[in-house]
Amino acid sequence: MDLLSITSLSDDQIATILDEGERWFAYNRQPRRNDHRLDGLTIVNAFFENSTRTLLSFEIAANRLGAQVVTMQVEHSSIKKGETLADTARTLNAMRPDVLVIRHGTSGAPADVARIMDCPVINGGDGIGEHPTQALLDAATLRQHFGRIEGLKIAICGDLKHSRVARSNALLLTRLGAELRFAGPPSLLPDDIAGGTIEEAVVGADAVMMLRVQRERLSEELGDGPGEYLAHYGLTKERFAHAAPYAVVMHPGPINRGVEIDGALADHDERSLIVRQVEMGVAVRMACLDLLTADRRVRP
Amino acid sequence: MDLLSITSLSDDQIATILDEGERWFAYNRQPRRNDHRLDGLTIVNAFFENSTRTLLSFEIAANRLGAQVVTMQVEHSSIKKGETLADTARTLNAMRPDVLVIRHGTSGAPADVARIMDCPVINGGDGIGEHPTQALLDAATLRQHFGRIEGLKIAICGDLKHSRVARSNALLLTRLGAELRFAGPPSLLPDDIAGGTIEEAVVGADAVMMLRVQRERLSEELGDGPGEYLAHYGLTKERFAHAAPYAVVMHPGPINRGVEIDGALADHDERSLIVRQVEMGVAVRMACLDLLTADRRVRP
Amino acid sequence: MDLLSITSLSDDQIATILDEGERWFAYNRQPRRNDHRLDGLTIVNAFFENSTRTLLSFEIAANRLGAQVVTMQVEHSSIKKGETLADTARTLNAMRPDVLVIRHGTSGAPADVARIMDCPVINGGDGIGEHPTQALLDAATLRQHFGRIEGLKIAICGDLKHSRVARSNALLLTRLGAELRFAGPPSLLPDDIAGGTIEEAVVGADAVMMLRVQRERLSEELGDGPGEYLAHYGLTKERFAHAAPYAVVMHPGPINRGVEIDGALADHDERSLIVRQVEMGVAVRMACLDLLTADRRVRP
Repeated sequence: MDLLSITSLSDDQIATILDEGERWFAYNRQPRRNDHRLDGLTIVNAFFENSTRTLLSFEIAANRLGAQVVTMQVEHSSIKKGETLADTARTLNAMRPDVLVIRHGTSGAPADVARIMDCPVINGGDGIGEHPTQALLDAATLRQHFGRIEGLKIAICGDLKHSRVARSNALLLTRLGAELRFAGPPSLLPDDIAGGTIEEAVVGADAVMMLRVQRERLSEELGDGPGEYLAHYGLTKERFAHAAPYAVVMHPGPINRGVEIDGALADHDERSLIVRQVEMGVAVRMACLDLLTADRRVRP
Repeated sequence: MDLLSITSLSDDQIATILDEGERWFAYNRQPRRNDHRLDGLTIVNAFFENSTRTLLSFEIAANRLGAQVVTMQVEHSSIKKGETLADTARTLNAMRPDVLVIRHGTSGAPADVARIMDCPVINGGDGIGEHPTQALLDAATLRQHFGRIEGLKIAICGDLKHSRVARSNALLLTRLGAELRFAGPPSLLPDDIAGGTIEEAVVGADAVMMLRVQRERLSEELGDGPGEYLAHYGLTKERFAHAAPYAVVMHPGPINRGVEIDGALADHDERSLIVRQVEMGVAVRMACLDLLTADRRVRP
Repeated sequence: MDLLSITSLSDDQIATILDEGERWFAYNRQPRRNDHRLDGLTIVNAFFENSTRTLLSFEIAANRLGAQVVTMQVEHSSIKKGETLADTARTLNAMRPDVLVIRHGTSGAPADVARIMDCPVINGGDGIGEHPTQALLDAATLRQHFGRIEGLKIAICGDLKHSRVARSNALLLTRLGAELRFAGPPSLLPDDIAGGTIEEAVVGADAVMMLRVQRERLSEELGDGPGEYLAHYGLTKERFAHAAPYAVVMHPGPINRGVEIDGALADHDERSLIVRQVEMGVAVRMACLDLLTADRRVRP
């Protein structure tokens, strides 16, 4: 079993990951932890794109279950010597890892790699493809907060065109019964998504997910002066005031304060779930690793 | 409890770290080691400045106590994407580490981060601020060698202005009863330290601590020709001959042979403690990690 | 005991590594692994040259035996601050590792370092010197496949002048009774090796080892146009057709498809051992680590 996209997961698998994610969330807050269920298993993180939070999150998740964790850094990799991705995958597979986590700048690369690997593969984000563990942690965070996902009105706003986070969330949250609204600058909306203005998306929303805009994408059209993008397309306090009274803000991080989101909203003790998302990230990844390796372990 | 500066440590804590450091020093020389007291704990090393010896030393110390160790490398970090240090700290905190070791180019950064973290924070060196574990390992090395620190005459020489090592050592060694003398090129002396010539500082000293001078700071004034800095401000055999008959040389490393110190002095079997300092570094960091996590462990 | 070169190994040690390597190969294919014989031991990988497969292979091998593994990356190292290799070695030694694996661009560097270290040192590849664990894994792969090495006709082809892999393999395979043939472009043949054309080397060979040619070495003389090097000096299907009917192809990787080897040959299910070499690499390195640390472990 691989975890390549939301589509590849069964309803049961999704339910298990969310349930177990919430359980690991509580476990991680305990001062005295001592789980070794992945003892003897080799988890390889192959990160072909720079990343802090996702890599750290997977490393900590695997360590916390007692796995042996090895990280391959692309800067030092044979990729730079012209090795094909398929050859790299064959090499990694020959080392007999028990799970491969891969992040890659090319959409579809994890699926290509998974066809070669004998072990489960987790897509840690591929190009403008998917980022399924991010969607799972977002869903788990929402469910933990609201007690349900069905019927929630969720706005996803920003650079939808280049966002694998948005794509995975759209697939997962729709499937779990949420009502989604999309908004973004016209030039950053994909053809197959009907998006409106951020004002329209936010009105009455239970949750507003803001996406990171790459600073290098800011242009005269999008507003590259200080505060311009925020004024036109970002989540300001004024806009958020039209969401539901108990609405929450979310963001996959790292946030650009004052660009896609007002800094004070991001920090709001009661309304921001942004830090909670990071915490749930480790927990949900523990659930994923646990699920994917269930048949590979030494029984005590 | 954090370990941010020498000032923040109680006398009891200092005594415990030095005592336990010496004990771990002996333990590390045993061929058969098998301690797992930090099993289940996550130690995160967040190094925002390049480092070999300090990072390796913390990694080995944590591993040797059975902890799960994760290292965040700044080159791959969101910092480069413009994330604020506070946001990085909130992210790290959400991952529920049990100790955070941070090295940062900005003085005060570890204290800023510690205000956000729920777990103990160790300052692994901050700008021109402090480097408390270096001072603790230097003190432990001196105490192991001389049997005491009180009453020792210790010269600290070199680029005092930019040295967090000097600052932490000045605070700690003074507190432990040593008599300190300072020396350095006039342009590298801070305003609040009365420093003399290296000849004055070394005369009769029991220990001479030489500080690393950044090669990029060498100028016409300091002497940028071969051997010039050594001739004017470095520790030559001639100068060291005026120290106490059993005097020792110390250096936090990495050393610039022939710049701040004569290479043969650095290598002297009986007079140089430089390699011993590195060995004590792992031991003292084990003591620090042990002390800071005492309330976080699973009892056997 | 160090593992610096093939010459430094006794016949018994070679036999043990090959036997145990095959045993670990089978072990690594088991779904449920749980060996901790190196528990409590610190393995330091000091890689002064970029590497993916060798570093990963050593990291996984050490992890799979339960060791604590720490990797020093040269990019972050004091080397860049001008520290001598001897000083780096003294620093590493003071941290009391139980095995040091070193890869270095300068031939002889691991031997220099080993003179300073108190623990076993493994040469993970030094300049144009040796790469003994690569030769051992190649020999183990050949022996696993053919049931023997004695009497095998083995062609080693390519950039022999700069290849530590070729040098170690020549020493080991000759010693184990193989009959070697060498071939390469005239400008890439060392003075002390009588090499012929690739056609001559391949005729009747049981195994053909192709060496990686650095793309930056391709010149007008060697053929820098598409397919030129392959046509003149590479392993084409036509050339391989003159090898023994059951001949195999090998390559230390990463391969340059269409440069030193035809891609379809590299991928051939029955004739290519290239992926098998990677798998045996982890196994043989486990055997080496096990052998070198036998006297350093806590007995259960």
